[in-house]
Amino acid sequence: MSKKIAILGASGYTGAELVRLIATHPGMDIVALSGERKAGMSMGDVFPHLRHLDLPDLVKIEEIDFSGVDLAFCALPHATSQAVIKDLPRDLKIVDLSADFRLRDPAAYEKWYGKPHAAVEMQKEAVYGLTEFYREAIRDARLVAGTGCNAAAGQYAIRPLIEAGVIDLDEIILDLKNGVSGAGRALKENLLHAELSGGTHPYSAGGTHRHIGEFDQEFSDLAGRPVMVQFTPHLAPFNRGILATAYVRGDVQAIYQALRDRYASERFLEVLPFGALPSTRSVTGSNFVHIGVSGDRIPGRATVVVALDNLCKGSSGQAMQNANLMLGMDEAEGLMLAPVFP
Amino acid sequence: MSKKIAILGASGYTGAELVRLIATHPGMDIVALSGERKAGMSMGDVFPHLRHLDLPDLVKIEEIDFSGVDLAFCALPHATSQAVIKDLPRDLKIVDLSADFRLRDPAAYEKWYGKPHAAVEMQKEAVYGLTEFYREAIRDARLVAGTGCNAAAGQYAIRPLIEAGVIDLDEIILDLKNGVSGAGRALKENLLHAELSGGTHPYSAGGTHRHIGEFDQEFSDLAGRPVMVQFTPHLAPFNRGILATAYVRGDVQAIYQALRDRYASERFLEVLPFGALPSTRSVTGSNFVHIGVSGDRIPGRATVVVALDNLCKGSSGQAMQNANLMLGMDEAEGLMLAPVFP
Amino acid sequence: MSKKIAILGASGYTGAELVRLIATHPGMDIVALSGERKAGMSMGDVFPHLRHLDLPDLVKIEEIDFSGVDLAFCALPHATSQAVIKDLPRDLKIVDLSADFRLRDPAAYEKWYGKPHAAVEMQKEAVYGLTEFYREAIRDARLVAGTGCNAAAGQYAIRPLIEAGVIDLDEIILDLKNGVSGAGRALKENLLHAELSGGTHPYSAGGTHRHIGEFDQEFSDLAGRPVMVQFTPHLAPFNRGILATAYVRGDVQAIYQALRDRYASERFLEVLPFGALPSTRSVTGSNFVHIGVSGDRIPGRATVVVALDNLCKGSSGQAMQNANLMLGMDEAEGLMLAPVFP
Amino acid sequence: MSKKIAILGASGYTGAELVRLIATHPGMDIVALSGERKAGMSMGDVFPHLRHLDLPDLVKIEEIDFSGVDLAFCALPHATSQAVIKDLPRDLKIVDLSADFRLRDPAAYEKWYGKPHAAVEMQKEAVYGLTEFYREAIRDARLVAGTGCNAAAGQYAIRPLIEAGVIDLDEIILDLKNGVSGAGRALKENLLHAELSGGTHPYSAGGTHRHIGEFDQEFSDLAGRPVMVQFTPHLAPFNRGILATAYVRGDVQAIYQALRDRYASERFLEVLPFGALPSTRSVTGSNFVHIGVSGDRIPGRATVVVALDNLCKGSSGQAMQNANLMLGMDEAEGLMLAPVFP
Repeated sequence: MSKKIAILGASGYTGAELVRLIATHPGMDIVALSGERKAGMSMGDVFPHLRHLDLPDLVKIEEIDFSGVDLAFCALPHATSQAVIKDLPRDLKIVDLSADFRLRDPAAYEKWYGKPHAAVEMQKEAVYGLTEFYREAIRDARLVAGTGCNAAAGQYAIRPLIEAGVIDLDEIILDLKNGVSGAGRALKENLLHAELSGGTHPYSAGGTHRHIGEFDQEFSDLAGRPVMVQFTPHLAPFNRGILATAYVRGDVQAIYQALRDRYASERFLEVLPFGALPSTRSVTGSNFVHIGVSGDRIPGRATVVVALDNLCKGSSGQAMQNANLMLGMDEAEGLMLAPVFP
Repeated sequence: MSKKIAILGASGYTGAELVRLIATHPGMDIVALSGERKAGMSMGDVFPHLRHLDLPDLVKIEEIDFSGVDLAFCALPHATSQAVIKDLPRDLKIVDLSADFRLRDPAAYEKWYGKPHAAVEMQKEAVYGLTEFYREAIRDARLVAGTGCNAAAGQYAIRPLIEAGVIDLDEIILDLKNGVSGAGRALKENLLHAELSGGTHPYSAGGTHRHIGEFDQEFSDLAGRPVMVQFTPHLAPFNRGILATAYVRGDVQAIYQALRDRYASERFLEVLPFGALPSTRSVTGSNFVHIGVSGDRIPGRATVVVALDNLCKGSSGQAMQNANLMLGMDEAEGLMLAPVFP
Repeated sequence: MSKKIAILGASGYTGAELVRLIATHPGMDIVALSGERKAGMSMGDVFPHLRHLDLPDLVKIEEIDFSGVDLAFCALPHATSQAVIKDLPRDLKIVDLSADFRLRDPAAYEKWYGKPHAAVEMQKEAVYGLTEFYREAIRDARLVAGTGCNAAAGQYAIRPLIEAGVIDLDEIILDLKNGVSGAGRALKENLLHAELSGGTHPYSAGGTHRHIGEFDQEFSDLAGRPVMVQFTPHLAPFNRGILATAYVRGDVQAIYQALRDRYASERFLEVLPFGALPSTRSVTGSNFVHIGVSGDRIPGRATVVVALDNLCKGSSGQAMQNANLMLGMDEAEGLMLAPVFP
Repeated sequence: MSKKIAILGASGYTGAELVRLIATHPGMDIVALSGERKAGMSMGDVFPHLRHLDLPDLVKIEEIDFSGVDLAFCALPHATSQAVIKDLPRDLKIVDLSADFRLRDPAAYEKWYGKPHAAVEMQKEAVYGLTEFYREAIRDARLVAGTGCNAAAGQYAIRPLIEAGVIDLDEIILDLKNGVSGAGRALKENLLHAELSGGTHPYSAGGTHRHIGEFDQEFSDLAGRPVMVQFTPHLAPFNRGILATAYVRGDVQAIYQALRDRYASERFLEVLPFGALPSTRSVTGSNFVHIGVSGDRIPGRATVVVALDNLCKGSSGQAMQNANLMLGMDEAEGLMLAPVFP
């Protein structure tokens, strides 16, 4: 019997992506969709690409009866998310796509997000949603915190290298090239087609991007000592995709082997042949991640490049993968859609 | 039990799109893939976005054993297609995506394609593949000829209007805006990103585009008298999508009603509310067609706008829909993938 | 000695385009720039591509001393423009880029813009700024009303054909493909890169677009009888450019000759060889217009295609051309910049 | 009196860019244009955006009479360039845009380009064309070798830092995001719009890109010891522009000051306020370079970001700047065109 699903914040891109994925998921039915400013509208009016689906209209969150709901995806803005989630029924399974429950340490949350957390207890309870590294905990979790899309891309490159002890922990540089949907549907001048197409620029440079909080938490936990990466994202003129170019130090063959070994049994993580490097275009619209490794003419240097779709594997696809686990289904259910190219 | 499928010409975009669709189709298995120039390569090397799939390597056509094959998709260049198909086993079901079997009249073929047809008998046998209008014949066909992508878009706008007798048959203008994948993977200067992005231009203007042959055949058959449309395609800087703007004369409410009635029970054809007009972005990556109708301040004028994905509904999705019918399956099997937006 | 120039509304795209053109204009100096919401900022902060220029900071209009100003470009939103202009010194030469003074008939203005005009006398005084057709009047004008960008493109295709009497006046269809900068810097969801790139759609269809008011006025005046065109613009994913595809009835050779003859001595209007059709990419960043003519297989039909850069020839370049005339300079001064391709 | 200019290899993008720049250059006349495969064609046929110019038709190089030519721009493919240049008149001034004369050391040339140099003497004579650093030598040179576009971007970031001794020479990483026109007009599958748009990927990774030869030569000369940078370019979906993100070690204020000081009197090099980072969109179509510096939360780290237009400042604009010097003109003549945005 299909599981009953609610999506809170369905009028944004990650909400729409969840609906797209559930459209061909054999074990999920959408029973409620919320959208504060667009309450009363049909999903087809907000997102015409979904108009063929038989979906409930958008409502306000308080109008939803959660009693029959098995799992709620929460695709609300951060800060809003914690306020909403703390009032949801205690037995409702929740996958949160916001930043609100990613950082376990209240002080870290306050540092990166500029104010105290409003649901500190739940912050501690939440399981970090990087499926391939938290799978067992996710299976039993009530609340899973989806990772930042940049944080996912960077961790797929680096985590196995820390685990295997094959890189210098003080020399990690992450240079990201990001598609624009990661910024959401916000009305900002720099996201207009006229402003954004035709070039690229860095943003949130110098160690100020909030996803760094996740890198610090995860890499330091893993290494058992503080690890700080240098991280610079760049906005590039395509809609979906993150390309993370990681500059690391260590033996390149050991690095390659660590990634191959770690991801050998993962269905969504594809390590390319040695020396081959990925393109974001080859994962667009899918939950797959392509990972490549190159050495350098300078001995002891290596480059690990990760490509994923920020809206799918970087956000809603990951959320679906986690929901599948939480609901006792095959983790890949509904997620084997092949990338769309060209 | 899954049907065994061969794809001839799998190294082009329509071939790759067929593989993408079959990847999540529950009733088809790919047993052979051909690609003359890329024979010996894996599909993942030719199209990295398909590397997660377990697929046979590309071979030359003559290396394929068709004895166990249920259906072959033929995604070869025109002229090549007829030469290959006439030598295939007589009991093999074939969906041809080329232009070779679209025109039933050998003289029309010669006129539009510049040389005599090499398989005239099969040309007559072939069923025209516009599913919603040839469904019953397709079900029983051995050879189905996929339509031109422009021809599909134009016919979805106009056929019901001719059937219902609600437009002036001598006053039909089709202005199309076409994504670049329709031109295939050909190495032409004007298809380079540097040349194509950043603007638009018309091509094959003045009644010279070969898809006009299909309009002439189909519209004249339907009307029982010669019908000639004025047709101008424009190349625009996006990868997938055709937007057909059809300028017609007649009562706009009758026109709208004719489309609503004709497509009421079609799962892939969505007629929008009166006055709403479609965007190609809302059908990208899917088999859906959005159709809108607008009146004009000039009485007796109407505009019908059709949006579809040229690679999917305009080509490989249509081919799959037809193959489903030919193999006795639900016509929508494997085709309910929601569009990808943004 | 250089002429002293003020630009009102310099923080929008047409304002920035004026600054770009003046940057290499030998006879103009910018002495004042206004921008209400961005008053106090430097132009380089608002538009970093202009940061190398030595420009006055943005101020509010009321802070400008117009006593030493020779000419003001007014790049304000419509409605705002008329309110501002009626209070400017009576001896100041003005080129208005808004829609406010394009329509000479107050009733027509009210019909298309939804409210009475606030400066009816000036509305009558204003000269319509389509340089090649109003050159002598512009030379002596105090107030010139820049045309709509779509209106310019359409008129370049059609005016000579009405003048020469070579087309059926009741059968004119204009199908436009428009770059996004024409919509300005407005923060609208459908102008976001994520929403706009990757496809196309029609807008303001059915005879509702305001530029139709200009077509009605100009074509009817020219023909000495009412002329109504059918006009549908489409938004396409490039930043600059309008491609106007005009469907007309008449002898195609007479049509071609009328355009050749009319534009033979025009420096910015290039009629391509018969049968060649233009691309917007070939005029990007310039004041040039490319015009092509094609016949059709249906006798008596012709297609005229016009390509121009909406921000330059369609707006700020035209404004500069008119300003040159009003200031007694060579009309092409500062405007011979070659297009930028690729 | 205007200088007489020949452009060899005028049918490629850098050739067309030279023509664009000369179109508004007051001191240069084009007297000959060569294009081997397109000999006999007009420039307007090859590049319609230049059709308004009165230009000589394309000819084969051997058809050119160089006796009246003051300076030749050589925009030929590498290897071809050296073969052609060694047979040109000894008193002809030449600006070569190919890679052939960038490396002074024949062994380095052979290492990076895979075969011995065919004009070793001229290789030694040639002056490296990075104007701001070789200005005096360029003024007196007969043969100037235009730099690689990536090499220019990287050197603008790093040279002043080596000169000032403010960075660790063993810790320089250059991550570049490159527009597609840098690859020229070559017919390659990965340069098609359908393949390139919509994402990004690295190429020539691991220290294999040929422009590294220039970095090695220049940085090592400057430092008086071997300097090797780690360099990875990425192809991104825009036509013009290079964004070079340089990761360096040193005191960020000293780094910023070194750039400010070094470029204080340079007309084309703009160092942004501390912490502001550039966008390629702000230099498109121009000879300007924007340079920004950011510190990092990790002490002792800094990021220097350089944006330039690869076809203009990275190639043809630089060539023009050098030609101006060689011909005794103001270095900025014809090059003050403002960037085109949006």
